[in-house]
Amino acid sequence: MEKRDELYAGKAKSVYRTDDPQRLILRFRDDTSAFDGKKKESLARKGTVNNKFNAFIMEKLQAAGIPTHFETLLSDDECVVKNLEMIPVECVVRNVAAGGLVRRLGVEEGQTLTPPTFELFLKDDANGDPMINESLAETFGWATPEQLATMKALTFQVNDVLKQLFLDGDMLLVDYKLEFGMFDGKVTLGDEFSPDGCRLWDANTREKMDKDRFRQGLGGVIEAYEEVGRRIGITF
Amino acid sequence: MEKRDELYAGKAKSVYRTDDPQRLILRFRDDTSAFDGKKKESLARKGTVNNKFNAFIMEKLQAAGIPTHFETLLSDDECVVKNLEMIPVECVVRNVAAGGLVRRLGVEEGQTLTPPTFELFLKDDANGDPMINESLAETFGWATPEQLATMKALTFQVNDVLKQLFLDGDMLLVDYKLEFGMFDGKVTLGDEFSPDGCRLWDANTREKMDKDRFRQGLGGVIEAYEEVGRRIGITF
Ligand SMILES: Nc1ncnc2c1ncn2[C@@H]1O[C@H](COP(=O)(O)OP(=O)(O)O)[C@@H](O)[C@H]1O
Ligand SMILES: Nc1ncnc2c1ncn2[C@@H]1O[C@H](COP(=O)(O)OP(=O)(O)O)[C@@H](O)[C@H]1O
Ligand SMILES: [Mg+2]
Ligand SMILES: [Mg+2]
Repeated sequence: MEKRDELYAGKAKSVYRTDDPQRLILRFRDDTSAFDGKKKESLARKGTVNNKFNAFIMEKLQAAGIPTHFETLLSDDECVVKNLEMIPVECVVRNVAAGGLVRRLGVEEGQTLTPPTFELFLKDDANGDPMINESLAETFGWATPEQLATMKALTFQVNDVLKQLFLDGDMLLVDYKLEFGMFDGKVTLGDEFSPDGCRLWDANTREKMDKDRFRQGLGGVIEAYEEVGRRIGITF
Repeated sequence: MEKRDELYAGKAKSVYRTDDPQRLILRFRDDTSAFDGKKKESLARKGTVNNKFNAFIMEKLQAAGIPTHFETLLSDDECVVKNLEMIPVECVVRNVAAGGLVRRLGVEEGQTLTPPTFELFLKDDANGDPMINESLAETFGWATPEQLATMKALTFQVNDVLKQLFLDGDMLLVDYKLEFGMFDGKVTLGDEFSPDGCRLWDANTREKMDKDRFRQGLGGVIEAYEEVGRRIGITF
């Protein structure tokens, strides 16, 4: 696998072409951003921690029958993935009310959501990743109804796998965001799963162990990510 | 039918009990508000114009098989309606991009939406009527999946009837908001249909003939409402 030119530098990862047009290299950087890129910082070790974290989770999901883009780890901060045609729609499942949901709807933070909720957001930093729905996604051509149905089903399947995995490590999976793309005609989980894109609380103390530590300036961000990893069996 | 005490004074209408617990009186006031009540004014004749407008439309919808709360006109600015248990969720269909959709998603105003879009908003002025979806409505108990499915189907049925009605008067039904409630176990169209809660453009000049004239300070608000009415056969 030969690394070629950079295709895209996102807010947290860089994407490189390879000699195989069907494969890309994802490099996890230390760059950390929040509030649509308005708050930015470099956090030492984040790239390597998230790369290993993501690899571990993607392999669990793959083993549970969820098609993912993940192929192999390549280095401390890089992995090889399938080259997906990304769908610009973010899928969010919430088990507990927090973050944007609480701000938008004025509902009480920390309440258990039964059944867990499902939301769609347009991946569009310029417009603050606005909430959308299936109808808007179809009409504007962001995703087809068939893709959306599969994305929703897969996002809830991920919940079944990961809620239990984190609970076994004494943590609550509060919410998470997934991105999907198409590979060989099949809706496939792309991007990453790491504490950058989900909320995880200690099940007993409800201490935040995810990117909210960065958003809210609580400190100990990467230490928390590592602690999450250790609790579910990742060695960094 | 005896008018009893005021049950609720909303931003544009007042609701009165009657001697029949199953019936209410809606009084359309001249009060006009926009931006979640931040802009307010009294516009002469609005109450009587919207009362007659609404009666005309509700009868058309009822005749097309859509269950509505409307019973009879009672006076220039009052009508008798069924007493619904209101569902706090607004249904919006859009045939053309305008208003909040354009602001939120950064899409081009005036483009035809194919297929027409469907959105849900929580009726909650304090939080700016935030966008929601079926999943959130179910989890927070605002509406059941069955109610939501019926509301969606009825909102699109209304589109079939009214798009053509306004087109016959040389107008585009750009978008509209409906509110539903339960009566006798049945999802029933409530509230009002008037130029206060929809967008109507002249089909040729695209001149605005609805509450956007008030929102944007264009003047001639009630004259435009009356012109819309005249074009579809209402006599004020
Ligand atoms: N397997 C894949 N194939 C193609 N693009 C991908 C894949 N996985 C992730 N991406 C895209 O690569 C970018 C990852 O970098 P990131 O820093 O998260 O970017 P962003 O700031 O756009 O969120 C994202 O735009 C993501 O959609
Ligand atoms: N048939 C009905 N039964 C009970 N309540 C109704 C009915 N139709 C409308 N309503 C409610 O009465 C109020 C109408 O007044 P309005 O000025 O539109 O109020 P608001 O400021 O709450 O939108 C609304 O809250 C609406 O939900
Ligand atoms: Mg990203
Ligand atoms: Mg109202």
